[in-house]
Amino acid sequence: MKLATYKDGSRDGQLVVVSRDLSMAHYASDIASHLQQVLDDWNFMSPQLQDLYDALNSGRARNAFPFDPALCMAPLPRAYQWADGSAYINHVELVRLARNSTVPDNYYTEPLMYQGGSDDFLGPCDDVICVSEAHGIDFEAEVAVITGDVPMDCTPEQALDGIRLVMLANDVSLRHLIPDELAKSFGFLQSKPATAFSPVAVTLDEFGEAWDQGRLHLSVQCNWNGRTVGLCDAGQEMTFHFGQLIAHLCKTRNVRAGSIIGSGTISNRAIEVNGKKEWTKGYSCIAEKRAIETIQDGKPATDYMKFGDTIRIEMKGREGQSIFGAIDQKIAALKRA
Amino acid sequence: MKLATYKDGSRDGQLVVVSRDLSMAHYASDIASHLQQVLDDWNFMSPQLQDLYDALNSGRARNAFPFDPALCMAPLPRAYQWADGSAYINHVELVRLARNSTVPDNYYTEPLMYQGGSDDFLGPCDDVICVSEAHGIDFEAEVAVITGDVPMDCTPEQALDGIRLVMLANDVSLRHLIPDELAKSFGFLQSKPATAFSPVAVTLDEFGEAWDQGRLHLSVQCNWNGRTVGLCDAGQEMTFHFGQLIAHLCKTRNVRAGSIIGSGTISNRAIEVNGKKEWTKGYSCIAEKRAIETIQDGKPATDYMKFGDTIRIEMKGREGQSIFGAIDQKIAALKRA
Repeated sequence: MKLATYKDGSRDGQLVVVSRDLSMAHYASDIASHLQQVLDDWNFMSPQLQDLYDALNSGRARNAFPFDPALCMAPLPRAYQWADGSAYINHVELVRLARNSTVPDNYYTEPLMYQGGSDDFLGPCDDVICVSEAHGIDFEAEVAVITGDVPMDCTPEQALDGIRLVMLANDVSLRHLIPDELAKSFGFLQSKPATAFSPVAVTLDEFGEAWDQGRLHLSVQCNWNGRTVGLCDAGQEMTFHFGQLIAHLCKTRNVRAGSIIGSGTISNRAIEVNGKKEWTKGYSCIAEKRAIETIQDGKPATDYMKFGDTIRIEMKGREGQSIFGAIDQKIAALKRA
Repeated sequence: MKLATYKDGSRDGQLVVVSRDLSMAHYASDIASHLQQVLDDWNFMSPQLQDLYDALNSGRARNAFPFDPALCMAPLPRAYQWADGSAYINHVELVRLARNSTVPDNYYTEPLMYQGGSDDFLGPCDDVICVSEAHGIDFEAEVAVITGDVPMDCTPEQALDGIRLVMLANDVSLRHLIPDELAKSFGFLQSKPATAFSPVAVTLDEFGEAWDQGRLHLSVQCNWNGRTVGLCDAGQEMTFHFGQLIAHLCKTRNVRAGSIIGSGTISNRAIEVNGKKEWTKGYSCIAEKRAIETIQDGKPATDYMKFGDTIRIEMKGREGQSIFGAIDQKIAALKRA
């Protein structure tokens, strides 16, 4: 099933069930007001939501209305945890190669992951409010999962059982603030402003064979200012699957219901064309494009985003249908009071 | 006023108001069930809680009962944000001196801070469940504040206005997992298991002059296995006050109601006694004791905690009364199913 959260002026919005084709929606108020409630009590509530979803898909839901992604908050407008991996090692390799450094051996055996802020997520069509263009504003297209309770020190296979829902994420990054924060080794705070999520969160059964053992084998399209700059496959080259990411996170602590775990920037390897490397799938963040330019030409040619720029991130199924709806955002300057 | 959260089998417990002397409590159910609700709507709800608090203190509250810290969850059993500073530069200096490194200049002008997990806090008397003693189990006594909404890019002075409540924290650390996570520069995940908080959260008016411009000028006592090992003053030597810590966090993003910001390990400078340095106030984490031993004797002599060890963290007012109640925990081994 597909779930979304409609804006209603409150901090947590109103849970709605959305039809498979994203055309219609229905308030879930008779079952639960908020997605966190459902995650807290998944086995009891999700079958009720599934019934409503089935009714909605078959045109039997009484108070259905047209679904509008622009009215959505993030499926979880705020969450108790947001931990973002860097699961596509190709991305790490490119960025490191561009700055003449190598990838440490242990990066191939255990995932990089940072703890992000989760108190203030953006809806799929909310503006990305930034203090300054000089910070190097970048998008990052990712897949993210929402978990149930996952116990401390579980295996990657056990962790897979804890996955409840899948979303897309735009993990906005302020690139020029990253070097100083990396130098401090304490992780990212100022360089990672609010993250945006797709209109709907989707259960695993919706993906059919495209979901396989913690990897989602479909492509994520990135349109920057209306131009398609990336169409990367999220599955094949995901070095660490979501079960491994979650198991990494819960090595010494419990992971509780409503935790969101991200894949990191989706990234595909180059192919050889006439003896030359070409990144035919494009890119899911500008930093990677700049890394490729640096590797090829000695310096980056592509600038980061400016105020007024737009970014659209969407995943389509094998029949061309949008699965999560689109993240579709504009970069805007902070207005001071 | 003083607020606590009683265990009731649910994830968020039940909000109670606690008398100033910590002897009596009263359910706040007629006003709000959970502390997060109060933080979401502070101006409306806090005066009602204050009325109940006043009635409780004067013996006029109808359904008051004896307060038992052992029945407490953390005041916020889970939160939308936990960001922990390292505001006592003396601690950073000692740890770095012990490993023959210096403190970078910018550490004196902007705070170190990491984003922590906030989905699974411990109550003040809950066991600290650890996977292995070999991880180097340590306590860290800290002061922490809970905020209301604080807007992006505000000043430290504006940020001070966003502070709603103060607590003590035991930011448990797994010291032997820290070097690898520092080397990755992505912050702490596995080396920071669940954090515990004091029985009650306290509003600023309770501190009188001891709260001054974002610093709490009182001492935190640490008892490890019943022996007092630290009695450090939390105020004077706090290099960055809480307004500065919050302003650092919200430089590029909004900080939302219910965010918890920690001070980092409370740490006091040595004094000269007969030409020799002595750390007369003791220590608020074992890592600092080991750093001092390394500086003095070339190697650490004190081991980290073992299963069965206890740690008690408490702050007393100028008349000797306990302000927050005590964090009083035992280290225990993870029991596997």
